[in-house]
Amino acid sequence: MLVLHTVQDVISWRNENIDRRTQTSGFVPTMGCLHDGHLSLIRKSRLENNFTIVSIFVNPSQFAPSEDLDKYPRTLQADLALLEKAGVDLCFVPNAAEMYPQGIPLEVEAQKGPFVTVIGVSEQLEGRTRPNFFRGVATIVTKLLNVVLSTHAYFGQKDFQQFTVLKVMAEELFMNTKLKMMPIVRDADGLALSSRNRYLCQESRHLSTAVYQALQMAAACLQNLDTNEEVQRSDLVDKILQHWVPHVTSGDFEVDYVSVADPRTLMELESVSGSTAVVISCAVFVKDRENSSTVVRLIDNILLNQ
Amino acid sequence: MLVLHTVQDVISWRNENIDRRTQTSGFVPTMGCLHDGHLSLIRKSRLENNFTIVSIFVNPSQFAPSEDLDKYPRTLQADLALLEKAGVDLCFVPNAAEMYPQGIPLEVEAQKGPFVTVIGVSEQLEGRTRPNFFRGVATIVTKLLNVVLSTHAYFGQKDFQQFTVLKVMAEELFMNTKLKMMPIVRDADGLALSSRNRYLCQESRHLSTAVYQALQMAAACLQNLDTNEEVQRSDLVDKILQHWVPHVTSGDFEVDYVSVADPRTLMELESVSGSTAVVISCAVFVKDRENSSTVVRLIDNILLNQ
Repeated sequence: MLVLHTVQDVISWRNENIDRRTQTSGFVPTMGCLHDGHLSLIRKSRLENNFTIVSIFVNPSQFAPSEDLDKYPRTLQADLALLEKAGVDLCFVPNAAEMYPQGIPLEVEAQKGPFVTVIGVSEQLEGRTRPNFFRGVATIVTKLLNVVLSTHAYFGQKDFQQFTVLKVMAEELFMNTKLKMMPIVRDADGLALSSRNRYLCQESRHLSTAVYQALQMAAACLQNLDTNEEVQRSDLVDKILQHWVPHVTSGDFEVDYVSVADPRTLMELESVSGSTAVVISCAVFVKDRENSSTVVRLIDNILLNQ
Repeated sequence: MLVLHTVQDVISWRNENIDRRTQTSGFVPTMGCLHDGHLSLIRKSRLENNFTIVSIFVNPSQFAPSEDLDKYPRTLQADLALLEKAGVDLCFVPNAAEMYPQGIPLEVEAQKGPFVTVIGVSEQLEGRTRPNFFRGVATIVTKLLNVVLSTHAYFGQKDFQQFTVLKVMAEELFMNTKLKMMPIVRDADGLALSSRNRYLCQESRHLSTAVYQALQMAAACLQNLDTNEEVQRSDLVDKILQHWVPHVTSGDFEVDYVSVADPRTLMELESVSGSTAVVISCAVFVKDRENSSTVVRLIDNILLNQ
């Protein structure tokens, strides 16, 4: 596996090695700290393409000054070993100066250069708590896709809103890459894999399985509906919140949002039938029981009838 | 010359006809109403590339609700005849729904979809009077470049700030097209060619030559400096404004701005020597003498030591 650090090197490599008219390439952008979720994307890319390219870049512009950019887990050597073993052709590992030639201060007001925003699907859900998150994600993915110019790019469903934002971006800016979403990979107990799970002690990690359980209960409720029967959004949300009451009471959980939305527009639905396309999603802050200053924000979702 | 109207048709044509590894293509995006300025870009593209592609699209997102989108001159048949004669290979003529799948209302607050902003070089000069202009330009050029995927794209120096914005955008988003700027084409009397010049009656058009004359006087002042001698920005600006006093007094001109700036950052300079890289630029509203409801905003600039 080749490891490259500059934009120019990746462009040269791609121009020399890939004939875009007859060969396909798959791209998996990551922030490193790789887990089986990432590896499932890489396996899919390998299956579907002549070349597979991965990037590892902890993107400053998607972190707010209050967030965990400095503490975000970085495990480059282990990541590279995993990628090598997974049969990746090229790993692109730029530094921040390479991706942001004018620098990238965390304060949005001080940032200069080109930025991509996707209006209409960025403001709700994750965007309410993290107002510049999707601007950062859309901008870095635009840069990476232009550098890699792959025919396909793979993203996990765990960040469903992120995929929606990027899909609207790629389609409506007419980018030359087709975006694909792959199912959430979960631990045996149902917890969605995330690089941030490792911040949690065993007890808090175990409690966190209630996040997905609640979503499953809401999904089951929809799947058990008779034809023409409907459920109100508020009833579904209540069912989910109800499941978390013990954890909220104990101080383990703080609920950020629960959403029952149209998967295309990410607008909340009033009511849902058994055949409505719907994404049930949530974000929950989990306070670590061993280290109370550690709060991990978990997100998860279930997609039905998509 | 082929004329295509859909994104998909252009992508198919380009994939079938251009081998990007061995052939170059030049792209000239326009809003139609073509003049010799546009044709100079096309000639340069023809000289430097295997293929030349032109687009004609009056881009709604760069017009404010108060501006002249509806009245912007549209001369498609004459334009196509000019392009055919100029040896253009492909002309792309999309409609607004093709370029903006979610629609594109003129009110920024109502717009949805992906947009590109270039912070740092968009806010001053043109951006003060036209706050969303460069967002519209950057967005449409991103879309067009992704569709055309040309190796080169050509722009006129008349819109110097536009070129600066697009160059920062293309370079820092790592777009796969190299942007080139060509000199301003002027009528014999010095007036910079512009599609909007045709709004002016002969008398007002003639008066408008004072716009460039004033910039020339400031440029001459810099070119006549001894080594190590400097001129204050305010003296240069005064010299320019002084030249326009009669036209301002008569109500023919209203000055929007005069700028003496660093051509790279578009930040105003305090003082300028004979060897300083500088762009002297201006925007002037010219009220038409035959039809006082017609006001044409003329822009012009001179670039020195770039």
